[in-house]
Amino acid sequence: MSTMRALIYAGVGNYVLQDRPIPKVQLPTDAVVKMVHTTICGTDLHILKGDVATCAAGRILGHEGVAIVQEVGPAVQSFKPGDKVIISCITACRSCYYCRKNMASHCVDGGWILGHTIDGTQAEYTRIPHADGSLHHCVKGASEEDQVLISDVLPTGYECGAVNGNIETGGVVAVVGPGPIGLGVVITAQLYSPSTIIVIGRGENRLKAAKQLGATHTIVSGPNTVSEVMKLTNGRGVDTVVEAVGVQESFELCQDLVAPGGTIANVGVYGSKVDLHLEKLWSHNISGSCERKEYSWGLTASTALKTRLVDAVTSPMLIRLLDMGKLNTEGLITHRFTFREIAEAYKTFGNASEHNALKMLISF
Amino acid sequence: MSTMRALIYAGVGNYVLQDRPIPKVQLPTDAVVKMVHTTICGTDLHILKGDVATCAAGRILGHEGVAIVQEVGPAVQSFKPGDKVIISCITACRSCYYCRKNMASHCVDGGWILGHTIDGTQAEYTRIPHADGSLHHCVKGASEEDQVLISDVLPTGYECGAVNGNIETGGVVAVVGPGPIGLGVVITAQLYSPSTIIVIGRGENRLKAAKQLGATHTIVSGPNTVSEVMKLTNGRGVDTVVEAVGVQESFELCQDLVAPGGTIANVGVYGSKVDLHLEKLWSHNISGSCERKEYSWGLTASTALKTRLVDAVTSPMLIRLLDMGKLNTEGLITHRFTFREIAEAYKTFGNASEHNALKMLISF
Amino acid sequence: MSTMRALIYAGVGNYVLQDRPIPKVQLPTDAVVKMVHTTICGTDLHILKGDVATCAAGRILGHEGVAIVQEVGPAVQSFKPGDKVIISCITACRSCYYCRKNMASHCVDGGWILGHTIDGTQAEYTRIPHADGSLHHCVKGASEEDQVLISDVLPTGYECGAVNGNIETGGVVAVVGPGPIGLGVVITAQLYSPSTIIVIGRGENRLKAAKQLGATHTIVSGPNTVSEVMKLTNGRGVDTVVEAVGVQESFELCQDLVAPGGTIANVGVYGSKVDLHLEKLWSHNISGSCERKEYSWGLTASTALKTRLVDAVTSPMLIRLLDMGKLNTEGLITHRFTFREIAEAYKTFGNASEHNALKMLISF
Amino acid sequence: MSTMRALIYAGVGNYVLQDRPIPKVQLPTDAVVKMVHTTICGTDLHILKGDVATCAAGRILGHEGVAIVQEVGPAVQSFKPGDKVIISCITACRSCYYCRKNMASHCVDGGWILGHTIDGTQAEYTRIPHADGSLHHCVKGASEEDQVLISDVLPTGYECGAVNGNIETGGVVAVVGPGPIGLGVVITAQLYSPSTIIVIGRGENRLKAAKQLGATHTIVSGPNTVSEVMKLTNGRGVDTVVEAVGVQESFELCQDLVAPGGTIANVGVYGSKVDLHLEKLWSHNISGSCERKEYSWGLTASTALKTRLVDAVTSPMLIRLLDMGKLNTEGLITHRFTFREIAEAYKTFGNASEHNALKMLISF
Repeated sequence: MSTMRALIYAGVGNYVLQDRPIPKVQLPTDAVVKMVHTTICGTDLHILKGDVATCAAGRILGHEGVAIVQEVGPAVQSFKPGDKVIISCITACRSCYYCRKNMASHCVDGGWILGHTIDGTQAEYTRIPHADGSLHHCVKGASEEDQVLISDVLPTGYECGAVNGNIETGGVVAVVGPGPIGLGVVITAQLYSPSTIIVIGRGENRLKAAKQLGATHTIVSGPNTVSEVMKLTNGRGVDTVVEAVGVQESFELCQDLVAPGGTIANVGVYGSKVDLHLEKLWSHNISGSCERKEYSWGLTASTALKTRLVDAVTSPMLIRLLDMGKLNTEGLITHRFTFREIAEAYKTFGNASEHNALKMLISF
Repeated sequence: MSTMRALIYAGVGNYVLQDRPIPKVQLPTDAVVKMVHTTICGTDLHILKGDVATCAAGRILGHEGVAIVQEVGPAVQSFKPGDKVIISCITACRSCYYCRKNMASHCVDGGWILGHTIDGTQAEYTRIPHADGSLHHCVKGASEEDQVLISDVLPTGYECGAVNGNIETGGVVAVVGPGPIGLGVVITAQLYSPSTIIVIGRGENRLKAAKQLGATHTIVSGPNTVSEVMKLTNGRGVDTVVEAVGVQESFELCQDLVAPGGTIANVGVYGSKVDLHLEKLWSHNISGSCERKEYSWGLTASTALKTRLVDAVTSPMLIRLLDMGKLNTEGLITHRFTFREIAEAYKTFGNASEHNALKMLISF
Repeated sequence: MSTMRALIYAGVGNYVLQDRPIPKVQLPTDAVVKMVHTTICGTDLHILKGDVATCAAGRILGHEGVAIVQEVGPAVQSFKPGDKVIISCITACRSCYYCRKNMASHCVDGGWILGHTIDGTQAEYTRIPHADGSLHHCVKGASEEDQVLISDVLPTGYECGAVNGNIETGGVVAVVGPGPIGLGVVITAQLYSPSTIIVIGRGENRLKAAKQLGATHTIVSGPNTVSEVMKLTNGRGVDTVVEAVGVQESFELCQDLVAPGGTIANVGVYGSKVDLHLEKLWSHNISGSCERKEYSWGLTASTALKTRLVDAVTSPMLIRLLDMGKLNTEGLITHRFTFREIAEAYKTFGNASEHNALKMLISF
Repeated sequence: MSTMRALIYAGVGNYVLQDRPIPKVQLPTDAVVKMVHTTICGTDLHILKGDVATCAAGRILGHEGVAIVQEVGPAVQSFKPGDKVIISCITACRSCYYCRKNMASHCVDGGWILGHTIDGTQAEYTRIPHADGSLHHCVKGASEEDQVLISDVLPTGYECGAVNGNIETGGVVAVVGPGPIGLGVVITAQLYSPSTIIVIGRGENRLKAAKQLGATHTIVSGPNTVSEVMKLTNGRGVDTVVEAVGVQESFELCQDLVAPGGTIANVGVYGSKVDLHLEKLWSHNISGSCERKEYSWGLTASTALKTRLVDAVTSPMLIRLLDMGKLNTEGLITHRFTFREIAEAYKTFGNASEHNALKMLISF
């Protein structure tokens, strides 16, 4: 047996299930893993639409999953064959300038490469470069399903939304866009104990899911959104606004909602430039927390707009919280398929609103 | 003697020296001070141009100065007649929602009101509301001239530029626009010991002043500015970019210069919206430092754009550094006038480049 | 009616209910309030035992309570007669060196003075100096009972335990001593979402209360305590250990439990010096989080022992969380009395273990 | 040529220069380097005195140096033969639980092992495990002499003293013990721009060196030390006290000097337990800065005692500052020897006060 089934990107608009050679360890720091579960990300759809020029036809897609280690290179220290692992969407060499700054998203020999510039996880086996920096051991206290969420959706929600948004204890949070990542923000925002989480979106079902996952208020977006939010916040606006859509209209809304001293955390993916209302924001002190902790003369608040890719450095901590039953992910996985049905999974996820779809679980 | 001379805003384009009644204590928390030195801010010019709609004709201008306390209300605790004081450009009640968050710039009964919505410091006497929160004792180890800089230019440079810019020890800083405030950023940025401070501007004289005040590199802005900066930074860009001009062109430059994980601190005042290149920055991890200090699993860097008004809460600390001779302000005050010559001071400051003018000192 | 009933400290071991003149506004910043609820603190018992030399016989005791404003001085901005308020155990002038550093516990004209160096809240009326800095408006979303806990027990648990302990998301916390303050730590520690909260104590009832308030594990203290905790933490020890007893034995236990890079937050009150095992801890990197948030090259962890008084600056935020139903305080108030029964309340609280007593509520 | 000269620990009180086999790469992550410069640390003297039980006779001593890479294992990414490098005193696998928390001092396969549990740098060649995490490239803008200081003395001074001490801009620092490490604290403390650095010690020569390296005040320790310091600090005490001696007497002094809200950073190495005056410090709010940067309601200060080993994670940043000429190390290296004279170097360093000795440079 030297071949495996794999989902291949076949050029704009197309994908195909094919046989491919099973990958082997190539470098001393590699591991090869046998997939147990994978899932589909919004980014996979972007690739299929041709939005991601750096992903060439012929590529095996996928950057998420739970797997079993088959083989490791001689320099791998933390994993051995038989270990059940979570695959990080971010590959980290842990040695380069950016990795030393914990910005693995910009790792010079890694970052987001799986299912993008090298073959990914929607196949029976995957080669994982820099295994020590790119895999995590599964834990016993959490379901395998939940652990798949550690690959991308939870650290992205946490790092790009909750952490980047400077959520403070007792503060007010708004999440604009309750898709899977926006809901990942809702789940992880609660780790900082805000008093209020307002979720703003169009689909009633997704707002209902947001409520179940911890939102304190939901608002169907419309002409009165700003005034409804102001009523909830004594006219002050929102301390942390998370943009999780990726279009000008939603970015404008965030600028209208943010309180003096607040933070806009951008999670959305943008195709073009946007308008920024510096004529209003220049004196608005966005970013409601002291950026200089050592400074005890008084907190100096600014308003901030923040953008970032996930670095997935928080995954060990999120795994521990899952293990202890401290993360409520109920209802985030809405559909389950076998790997042979992956084409159907793509269809369901591609028409998410029709199927009330959030995350797809695909099992081998 | 119940009247005093005062510089009055007389409607768009005009100002006049007039006699006015000497102000009195009106509320238990007021002080009245006799001016010793004042200065002119770029904002005073904005008012004269008619840019500041909230400032009505008839207003005594000015929000900076060193003075001697004449009279205090019964609730004033920290000052008594005869004390030599620095006047803060920001009035702080220290009790409201925003003051408790150390955002005195948004104080509900204060903020920037002197020489704006109440009479200011370009007069022989000034009434200071909330004296306990709005004055500072002068110190002996620093010159009175330097202490005038504590009213506005140093805390603004520090809070809006150096603090807001998240400057880190050993990091790379660029300041775009070496006017008085930009130079205030150059002076105070050094408090965080960056390895490199690059100042970018048009005027050779201001770049020379920047070098004297601590810039490690200066660049005359032009078509090669970005490539020159990239050469200085191994192609990575700048960790902290401070925008101190206030126009689209300069804001674009800042977006081109910022490194992954870096911060753009906006100090400039804007009259209209600007383009923000989220299509590039969404994955750029701006804001090069951990926004969550308690998180020990790894630093999670984002790219941030920050805006703010000065809160002047750092003034006591800056005063202490001045007192100990730890702030180099040499050459920041370029011209000296008596109060009777204030009209000439306005003319000189209004044509700053012609006169190589930075800060004007006006003495009573 | 110019007199009121008040509980007076009558010298070591004694207290008495007496008539006293109703206090009046003395300074422009004073308020006088009519008490609605008060409670008894462990510190009141210390005074009665003669442990607090700075409290003279004749003093009205008490530093906690909910009240209605009767009269305010002319400089009070935020309160007017009729307002229902929470009294802070810490009086803050908001102007002195320490208040500007948010260390109101060391306020030069305040700090802990109520029921200590000036008359306190166990009387029908109380004079509150520096009312703007020392009162908080009651809210509608929380019970008055819960709001009494804002006077002391919740901010002390939060500031001296949870904040001081550097609790990190996903971290491991141990609280040694489940008295009212230790339970306040258990309640507020959860605001930082640790994965594990281990409570260690002697009394089964208090451990049961700890479990109800959010502890994940409880341990009856004994010879195996250290090994039981090590088993729960993979042999690494505890990230945040909170000492809430105040004796050498318990302080030794904390030193045995703390992980490399962890923090010991001291909440206990000590009567004499203790042994510190620097021969072991010097290389132990206590204080498991980056003390320099601006430093992005890597988190540098140290081990820390921290001590402090409550500053009560976090009360507005805690009030907001109570208001939104985000703090679980169930069972913390165990006994209820009228003010006429306050002697019985003291007896019950003085024999807390016999009565399974935590906090006493005393209503007027 | 397969042998080299090496300085060997020959049991308590003894060392010897011997021929040893030149080391080879053993693991894929190893490098072997040819030494150019090394130095002697106080810890080497501790080993010779028999204080370090974990160091066996026969060990090649030394954990500092500049060298040239000779050979690398196949998994080494950042270094190749011919590279001039700085050797870190701390070996870091960059993958284990502690390395991921940037606590390389507790690395499960590293930490301080060179010249301790494996052969060290006082030999012509050294094997460096985990080369990617344990070496740094030399830079051109700094002398090789200065770069030797990056191996240990500068990161130790910075991480254990300056960072751990929570030095704040404009704050007051005291360093007790001006030995090489204490002077490393003086050098690196300036990176945070305190207003005042007081150095306390016995030897006039070392105090003179401290002044040259940036101390603003020096005090010969004696019965009036506390009152002299209080006079310099308006009776408030010192914000950051660094203990760099390692005995009870000096630790007592630190407890007397620390201000409310201040920090004691322990750098000294202790052989036995010490007295901690919690009966005084429990209410003293040590640790003068907000430990929770996200909390904008007010800074909450505590008093902290911190201990730690160096993790050397800040070395890349310190190298950059050296490269840009931003660290003043003048006079820290007092004596120079060839490797053949190393016995004499040990004698000089062992009688440091007699020879006014700070750091020895030993060149190959």
